[in-house]
Amino acid sequence: MTDPLRLGIAGLGTVGTGVVKIVRQKASLLAARAGRPITISAISARTRDKDRGVTLSDYAWEDDPVALATRDDVDVFVELMGGSDGPAKAATEAAIAAGKDVVTANKAMLAHHGQALAIAAENAGRVLRFEAAVAGGIPVIKALTEGLAGNEITRVMGVMNGTCNYILTRMQSAGLPYDTVFDEAAQLGYLEADPTLDVGGIDAGHKLSLLASIAFGTQVDFDAVDLEGIEKVTIADIRHAADMDYRIKLLGVARMTGRGLEQRMSPCLVPADSPLGQLEGGTNMVVLEGDMVEQIVLRGPGAGEGPTASAVMADVMDIARGCRVSTFGQPAKGLQKAQSALGATPAPYYLRMALEDKPGALAKVAAVLGEAGISIDRMRQYRHDDTTAPVLIVTHKTTRSALDAALDAMSRLDVVATEPVALRIETV
Amino acid sequence: MTDPLRLGIAGLGTVGTGVVKIVRQKASLLAARAGRPITISAISARTRDKDRGVTLSDYAWEDDPVALATRDDVDVFVELMGGSDGPAKAATEAAIAAGKDVVTANKAMLAHHGQALAIAAENAGRVLRFEAAVAGGIPVIKALTEGLAGNEITRVMGVMNGTCNYILTRMQSAGLPYDTVFDEAAQLGYLEADPTLDVGGIDAGHKLSLLASIAFGTQVDFDAVDLEGIEKVTIADIRHAADMDYRIKLLGVARMTGRGLEQRMSPCLVPADSPLGQLEGGTNMVVLEGDMVEQIVLRGPGAGEGPTASAVMADVMDIARGCRVSTFGQPAKGLQKAQSALGATPAPYYLRMALEDKPGALAKVAAVLGEAGISIDRMRQYRHDDTTAPVLIVTHKTTRSALDAALDAMSRLDVVATEPVALRIETV
Repeated sequence: MTDPLRLGIAGLGTVGTGVVKIVRQKASLLAARAGRPITISAISARTRDKDRGVTLSDYAWEDDPVALATRDDVDVFVELMGGSDGPAKAATEAAIAAGKDVVTANKAMLAHHGQALAIAAENAGRVLRFEAAVAGGIPVIKALTEGLAGNEITRVMGVMNGTCNYILTRMQSAGLPYDTVFDEAAQLGYLEADPTLDVGGIDAGHKLSLLASIAFGTQVDFDAVDLEGIEKVTIADIRHAADMDYRIKLLGVARMTGRGLEQRMSPCLVPADSPLGQLEGGTNMVVLEGDMVEQIVLRGPGAGEGPTASAVMADVMDIARGCRVSTFGQPAKGLQKAQSALGATPAPYYLRMALEDKPGALAKVAAVLGEAGISIDRMRQYRHDDTTAPVLIVTHKTTRSALDAALDAMSRLDVVATEPVALRIETV
Repeated sequence: MTDPLRLGIAGLGTVGTGVVKIVRQKASLLAARAGRPITISAISARTRDKDRGVTLSDYAWEDDPVALATRDDVDVFVELMGGSDGPAKAATEAAIAAGKDVVTANKAMLAHHGQALAIAAENAGRVLRFEAAVAGGIPVIKALTEGLAGNEITRVMGVMNGTCNYILTRMQSAGLPYDTVFDEAAQLGYLEADPTLDVGGIDAGHKLSLLASIAFGTQVDFDAVDLEGIEKVTIADIRHAADMDYRIKLLGVARMTGRGLEQRMSPCLVPADSPLGQLEGGTNMVVLEGDMVEQIVLRGPGAGEGPTASAVMADVMDIARGCRVSTFGQPAKGLQKAQSALGATPAPYYLRMALEDKPGALAKVAAVLGEAGISIDRMRQYRHDDTTAPVLIVTHKTTRSALDAALDAMSRLDVVATEPVALRIETV
């Protein structure tokens, strides 16, 4: 097989531009590795006349990504436009219908339409691959789908939104409040146009739902992800957590339980000396656990031109080499919709609340926990600040339903001044 | 393609037994993922009548691994016997000649004969894969060969011998000398029959030479690895390193320089707060650096039944799925023998020596360094212990040749009581 593999690239932002650069600058290296040349036939983007720092005049231009996706001289449609619906989805569907393989970095599209698109690709005998959609340059889709193919996966965890990890670690290192660091991140261009995609955990939740599908052989079910953003995490929480040798991370966890599939994306406490706890700045980390392999930890840049383009090229090179793995590691038409099991796995929790300076205040809180069947591992009351005192409690393992009952009862106590904050402590 | 993929497994130690267990216990999961059943036709081992905790009576038995490797009902020869030559090599060659694909965990065989075996496999239109040969359960061969296929690799580093890392971290945590921990490791069964394979850096050097071949597109050249074991590392070195926020690791580094390929496996100092510095016990870690992806860090168990069997199965599943990648990521017949460039990259060094309690002793040492063009970053002299005083020096970046000249001159000074120890400080 020495015919060139011909790409059509839709979307020329940083990632698309990075892919063009790799194909142009590493032609002989790629050809040696793939056993055939990789070429670009045509490109498409919203704006044509813009200096992207790379020569584009060698390629046919299409204003319409659907037209690009269905060109006769395109073997692989590379979708780098983004957006869960609209042109990205239309062009991907058109590419598959026209018999093209598809490589995409579009986590939102796959989280919402991955099952249907994967079936369409299978029916057409084409592949739909998405290494770049999860954790940037880390080859985690490949590690999970292929590297651990001999394992029953027991848990997938990860810090998969670099912006959130930047915000949380910057709050800690600089001692700055959430709002200040959020503004910094915005000025640095780290946030999506709609920042709730980042800080609300949605972007990371998309990624988790894709990993869960591969890991557990179930249909992608983003709507079943228990989502909680980092907006409520305070600098006080970060400091208290550090005092107890924990770090706070926006952590995704997916696990198959006896009751069904548990998928959570929420701020969690992890041990400060664990690989996840030590993860600083915008770096991503994914932890894969299998019954044979025990635990594999993958760490790397979660975004950026080079790393994301590297991941796109991994998929392109696989196709060029004739490696044609199903989108989610097995035929999509055989994937079952998992029962959703939110809160199925008990865990210890970190609780923070402000108590009124009244006799018996702490006793009332302790009584509420006791009534809910929750035992206390550690408790600290700090000195009163005017009229209220911060209180921290670390519980022993409890269920989410018992915890919710206790939180509900606490909010009705006259001694609890603010709504208690509860963060899960994840064993890593 | 729904015909079963039929394995012939030679070697039924922990890894071989683990592979049999996976194939037996996960038959439906493997078939769903691969799109076809994975079966075992025949097995071979040195001892037949031994309880291995798994039913083997379903499989044909061969006393001779060559006979196993050439059976008509075997599609993939799984070589788990070990040993660089002898039966492992004979059976691998026979399997390739008989038109079988080969999966092996045998780093020694590949480090010495990988080039010839890869060419034989290519000429026969067969694949020879070895995920399990490097870093146990970590899918690092896949990450490097496929996941980073769009990158020019700039450096590969790793802690790839769990026994050495166990010894070094145990010395530190328990404050025990090398000999004591070495004996512990021997009693725990962590050491190879010939322990110099571990503590001499040979086993890890084999692995490094395989990674270097993939990374830089060069022929495997184990003989060009600059090997240094951990036998000379003292508890004092470990403590001094820790005092300066370093950890000592048996670290492999491969890098393409302007003068050729540099391959080193030696005890190095790395920052205590880096992922490599934080690596404890028998865990392995590989750091892959590419021009696009920046830095990827992979961490996981480097040995053991489950993790190594998991890696073997990754190769088997690739073959079952029709993914047929060249042994070293590109056709072996096109690989060049690299120029060897030992010591090409300057680095800072840690030096330890014992100085006689004589006036001007320190000045003489400093003068030797100055004459060799080596400047001092930090120096500490500790209190005299009877007649000599331990002295530590951290140099600025210097070349290995300048350092060797200085060490040579120092050994001729009348004030240096013992041969100075020099350990490289690797930037990570």
